[in-house]
This record gives sequence, structure tokens and C-alpha cells, in this order.
Amino acid sequence: MSYMDLNIAQKIIEGAQKKSNEMESNFCVSIVDPRGDLITFIREDGAPWRSVYISQGKAAASAAFMQPSGKLAEGGLNPIHQGLMGMLGGRMIPGQGGLPVYKENEIIGAVGVSGGTPQEDEEIAYAGINHAGCKTSK
Amino acid sequence: MSYMDLNIAQKIIEGAQKKSNEMESNFCVSIVDPRGDLITFIREDGAPWRSVYISQGKAAASAAFMQPSGKLAEGGLNPIHQGLMGMLGGRMIPGQGGLPVYKENEIIGAVGVSGGTPQEDEEIAYAGINHAGCKTSK
Amino acid sequence: MSYMDLNIAQKIIEGAQKKSNEMESNFCVSIVDPRGDLITFIREDGAPWRSVYISQGKAAASAAFMQPSGKLAEGGLNPIHQGLMGMLGGRMIPGQGGLPVYKENEIIGAVGVSGGTPQEDEEIAYAGINHAGCKTSK
Amino acid sequence: MSYMDLNIAQKIIEGAQKKSNEMESNFCVSIVDPRGDLITFIREDGAPWRSVYISQGKAAASAAFMQPSGKLAEGGLNPIHQGLMGMLGGRMIPGQGGLPVYKENEIIGAVGVSGGTPQEDEEIAYAGINHAGCKTSK
Repeated sequence: MSYMDLNIAQKIIEGAQKKSNEMESNFCVSIVDPRGDLITFIREDGAPWRSVYISQGKAAASAAFMQPSGKLAEGGLNPIHQGLMGMLGGRMIPGQGGLPVYKENEIIGAVGVSGGTPQEDEEIAYAGINHAGCKTSK
Repeated sequence: MSYMDLNIAQKIIEGAQKKSNEMESNFCVSIVDPRGDLITFIREDGAPWRSVYISQGKAAASAAFMQPSGKLAEGGLNPIHQGLMGMLGGRMIPGQGGLPVYKENEIIGAVGVSGGTPQEDEEIAYAGINHAGCKTSK
Repeated sequence: MSYMDLNIAQKIIEGAQKKSNEMESNFCVSIVDPRGDLITFIREDGAPWRSVYISQGKAAASAAFMQPSGKLAEGGLNPIHQGLMGMLGGRMIPGQGGLPVYKENEIIGAVGVSGGTPQEDEEIAYAGINHAGCKTSK
Repeated sequence: MSYMDLNIAQKIIEGAQKKSNEMESNFCVSIVDPRGDLITFIREDGAPWRSVYISQGKAAASAAFMQPSGKLAEGGLNPIHQGLMGMLGGRMIPGQGGLPVYKENEIIGAVGVSGGTPQEDEEIAYAGINHAGCKTSK
């Protein structure tokens, strides 16, 4: 069984920061396990405080529903997603910038990014996953 | 680095009250720092008790998202705003009447007003910021 | 019927700040009505952020139980106080530094102070009440 | 004015991990700013998921009260600490293992550790702070 160890998580951060250096904004990057609990996190200097929470919420939403967090909000939230988010105390954020992480066809966690445009956030998440040799879908 | 000291905050209140004297309603005015924590607050005699909380919620929302709190609700709440508001225990209110405060191109806090129409609330916030020699955008 | 208008509340703040100038610490001062809702508030430059919340909580506790908030914690919290504090969403803090405000034998609100030692906090609350020509008991 | 940038925070993690390698348990280490918002975080492989939250809660408590989180629980919780913790939505944990971080006599944040005995947790926090050239008191 594959799982996300700290080593993989730190590789994802490394790749994310490399990408973020090409951009003007400063970012928060959260890596979580399949349960949505944090494995590692960084806030780049100058990233807004709200991004601490938003990046974690996107990562948690991607992990819970095993899909990009941006997909969850398309066409309005569905009631099951909304229900689960309420049940779990509002820890998930269904906006673009979170991606699930797959290795050997198994989900091993998710990445959530916040600080730039939703599109930039997702690009950074993708760059991190790619840098670590993982995928964002089966 | 600029920041909102009590002196600036009290100038904002002064300008807000001057404007409020031209109107019929009575208002609550909250001034918060960039993290959303209160710096100063007044409730004019006769302002409804709910405005105590609404003015603070608008100020906190403006500070967190660095924009007018009225913008946040336009076209329905976006899921990221909704998510962050849930995560932070319902301390933010995304309705017109809150404005961020900028000085030397840096956000130094926000003002939230409640008690009149949303339009009046925002006018009072604006008058206060203007009176203190600050701006509401970069 | 006596009640705390903004004018009295600002007099209390004035007296509190005069006293606070004699001390080394920086303080937050909250003035609330008998229901515990804020009338006015100031955070002196340099006062810690936690004092924003603690001063309000002490004021709310004094108003609710019509006694010094420091009395409430003596000998451990009684279960009624604890129950009410829970019911109302944790907005009260039963520690020294809050005093009820009486005028013409009626409670018109309360003051809560935080930022120094509990003893200093209470002295500042008392100085404010006194300066405004009010009392802290019937 | 001193503040904790990502570079200092990562030095603290480095020192904490060096110390943790001498111990049998696996740890979570949270670094927060003075307001209690996360700057960086790691969960070592094998650390229990509850330690993710406990380490953050200890760090937040140390930051809010500018003292070791273990001190807060000595002799039972005082009602002011309890009150503030309730007000802020249960984000603080007053148990040993969190230490404030000072630089040039100013608080710049706090470290919270969980995963071993409370004593070990605090030793790791201390080792991290020391490694980064910071102090845990004025």
C-alpha cells in the first residue's frame, strides 16, 4: 500500500516553491493525508493570513472527495458535499487550488494552495505533485 | 511598515460620526486590524444591538479579504469565502458596509458600519477613512 | 430609568486611560450595556491581541452577574455561572478586571479591562467608573 | 521590529528534528506567529494524527499567553485562560510542549510539539528554538 510519507510531502513543497518563485504572489501550501490531516505546511513570507486556512481547507476537500477542490464548487455545491462539510466542523473549502495526490493508482493525500489567483494556486499544486513523481488522478 | 494605531482609528471614528450626524439612523462603527481584531468601537445611542455584531463582522470580512465586504456577497457567496467564514467560527459578515483601510499602499485594517441602509453604512465607513487621510484601496 | 449612553461610556474610557497612563502596561477597555453588548472599546497601542477578547469577556461577565468579574472565579466557578457561560457561546470571562456600573442604584452596564495584572486591570476599571461619576455597586 | 519569517521557522524545525532523532517517538511540530496562525508544520512518519492538532493547539496557547503552554495548566486552568480558549473556538491547548519564541526581546511566535511525553515535547521545542538562535523568554 502506498502512502504519503514526510519525504514525499516535502518533495511536493519543493516543487511548489520552485513554481511559486516564477510568480509574483506569495503562497501557503498544505499537504494532507487521505483523511485530511496535515502532513506538512509552509507559509511563504508575505502570504496573507487567510491563506493559511484556505490552503488547508482546499487540501482537505480534495482529499475527502478524491478530486480537484475546484470541481466541487462547479455549478453550485451539491448537498452531500455541503452536508459532509458541515458535519466535520467546516474544515473543507471547495474552491480551485486543491488537487488529490495519487501514487500507484492509490490516493495518498492532497495538496491545497492559496495566495494567488485560483488558477495560479492550482498550477502550483500541480507543479508540486509532478515534481514529487506523483499524479493527480488514477 | 504602516500600521493602524489608536490615533488613526479614532480619527476614522471622528469622520464617521461627522457623516452619521447628517443621517437619520444611528450607527455602530468597528475598526479592526488586518487580522480582524478590534482596535476601537462605538455604538451611537439608539443603534440596535445587532449592529454591534454586524459592524464587527463586516470589518473582519473586509480585513480578511482586503476588499469591500459588499463585494463579497455580489452574485452569491463564493465557496472559498463561505469556507473561510465557517472555519473561523462565523466571525465574518459579507455584506455592504465594510471597507479595507490602506496607508502607503499597505492594508492597515478595516472599518465596518451597521445601523442604516447598506449604502449609508458604506458611506460612513468611507467618510471615516477619508477624514483620517487614509485610502480604501492601493 | 438610567442607562449608559455613549457619553457616559466615553467618560469611563477617559478616566480609564488617565489611570492607565500612570502604569507601564497597555490596556484594552470594553464598556458594555447590561446585556453584555459593547457600547465602546479601545485598544491602546501595544496591548496584546488576547486582551481584546479578555476585556470584553470580563465586561460581559460583570454585566450578566451584576458583580465584579473577579468574584465569579473565587473558590472555583459555580455550576450556574459555568452553565450560562456555555449556553451563551463562551462570551464571558470570570476573572478579575471587570466591574459593574451603577447609576442611581440601577445597573447600567459594566467595564472590562485587560493588559496588566488582574489587580491593575480592576484599578483601571474602577478609575473609569469613578471619573464618570458612577458607582460599582448600589 | 522582529518577526518570524519562514527561514527562522524552518531553522526551528531543523533543530527540533535533530533532537527528535535522539528519541524513540515521532513528533508533530507546529510553528505559529504571535496571533497563533501557522507558519510551518511537519508531521514525522508514524506520529499519531491527534498530534497534528495538539501541537498546533499548544503553539497557539503559548503565542496567545506569551508563556510555556505547560505553565497554563499548572494548578488547574485559570478562568481567564479557559474563557479566552472558549471565545476563540477551542483552538488552544494548555498542556506542556509549547514554548513562545523571542528575538531581540520581542515575541515573534511560538512552537508546539506533540508525539512523546510532555517533557520530551517541550525539550524538542526548546532544541528547535535554540538551534535557530532564538530564546524562549525575554
